[in-house]
Amino acid sequence: MARGYFITFEGLDGSGKTTQLRLLAASLTAAGRNVVTLRQPGGTALGDRIRGILLDSRSEASLGPIAPATEMALMFADRAQAIAEIIEPALASGSIVLCDRYTDSSEAYQGGGRQLGSERILAMHAAACGNLQPDLTLLLLPSLEGSLRRARRRNQRHTRQQGTDENRFERESDEFYRRIYDKYEEIAAREPRRVHPIRDEAPIEEIHTHILEIVSTRLGAPTP
Amino acid sequence: MARGYFITFEGLDGSGKTTQLRLLAASLTAAGRNVVTLRQPGGTALGDRIRGILLDSRSEASLGPIAPATEMALMFADRAQAIAEIIEPALASGSIVLCDRYTDSSEAYQGGGRQLGSERILAMHAAACGNLQPDLTLLLLPSLEGSLRRARRRNQRHTRQQGTDENRFERESDEFYRRIYDKYEEIAAREPRRVHPIRDEAPIEEIHTHILEIVSTRLGAPTP
Repeated sequence: MARGYFITFEGLDGSGKTTQLRLLAASLTAAGRNVVTLRQPGGTALGDRIRGILLDSRSEASLGPIAPATEMALMFADRAQAIAEIIEPALASGSIVLCDRYTDSSEAYQGGGRQLGSERILAMHAAACGNLQPDLTLLLLPSLEGSLRRARRRNQRHTRQQGTDENRFERESDEFYRRIYDKYEEIAAREPRRVHPIRDEAPIEEIHTHILEIVSTRLGAPTP
Repeated sequence: MARGYFITFEGLDGSGKTTQLRLLAASLTAAGRNVVTLRQPGGTALGDRIRGILLDSRSEASLGPIAPATEMALMFADRAQAIAEIIEPALASGSIVLCDRYTDSSEAYQGGGRQLGSERILAMHAAACGNLQPDLTLLLLPSLEGSLRRARRRNQRHTRQQGTDENRFERESDEFYRRIYDKYEEIAAREPRRVHPIRDEAPIEEIHTHILEIVSTRLGAPTP
């Protein structure tokens, strides 16, 4: 059986990557492909426990602040488990794997945003993930200003609904998000064959069509 | 203020390292030293949650088997947090830090026992721990046969008391423990200045006296 194809979606919160991942999964499934989707952090039972430590803002109150290197190592623990339990078996069985965030997120958020630098992240990736790289990364990178506006809006909505503190990541400053954005640009420039940036500020359906073209070309097979 | 001194205790389960750590802590405290002790995994509130995932054999039933690379990354997440919260602040304030297991345990158990190899562990250590090394490592390494006998006895006692499955690590085979033992030997040979092997099968008090001599020499100051 031919090995499957590993596609990751990257971008800032509010970039629309999760929506686009779902639309692509639906189109590929409709075209008769076997598709496996997952998000990071999380996706496995063990990963969900790790995700709970990482994202629950209450954990910061009860457990003390999480050190940047701890956050990084927990992300990679989660990722190593997802690779072993889900990604590698799916690729081995010929499926297309669509993953919402992967190591580029660690490099952008921890390496750039938290200023740990790329080198430590890439060393951790090699050690924990055996350096497994996506075949294609769709990087949703509309203008930083638009992304920040959307992230803040989402955040306010979320805060109102939950009546609680924002998610820990969403409390960060604009400067933090600017460093993430710049790191994503750096990754795209460094790995042009793998990383495909999508800068459109177009409606959701148009971006979906654009993504479908890119994926069809890469897979070398017709899609709807 | 002079920087403190970082001592780790290493060895197989049942080697007596935890007992010796407590005796050394008591002697140093009695001699007027500031001493901070911790165990790995665990030691911080966040680390205790990670320890729960790692050691609770029930988690294996409910969460599925933990991949070796996941186990390794969780160990380093715990360690990074202990360094940031406990070890570095204690060393900065001039304390002597006594740590029950550290990166040598990861290299011996995951690198040797689970056969991940040393290279991945050392890369992970550099990335997650900024390569912080102990000033002195006391490696309790009596004969493998004696160690296995003690580990099995402890294990049976534990199983009777708890009426449950053994701890996940203790269910492993003798061959697993032999690989750990060999890796400890390899580390001692590689880093003779840092790692001090103690091979005595002597009574607890005699080993304690031996350790106290080693530490007094290293610290260059009288101890009781």
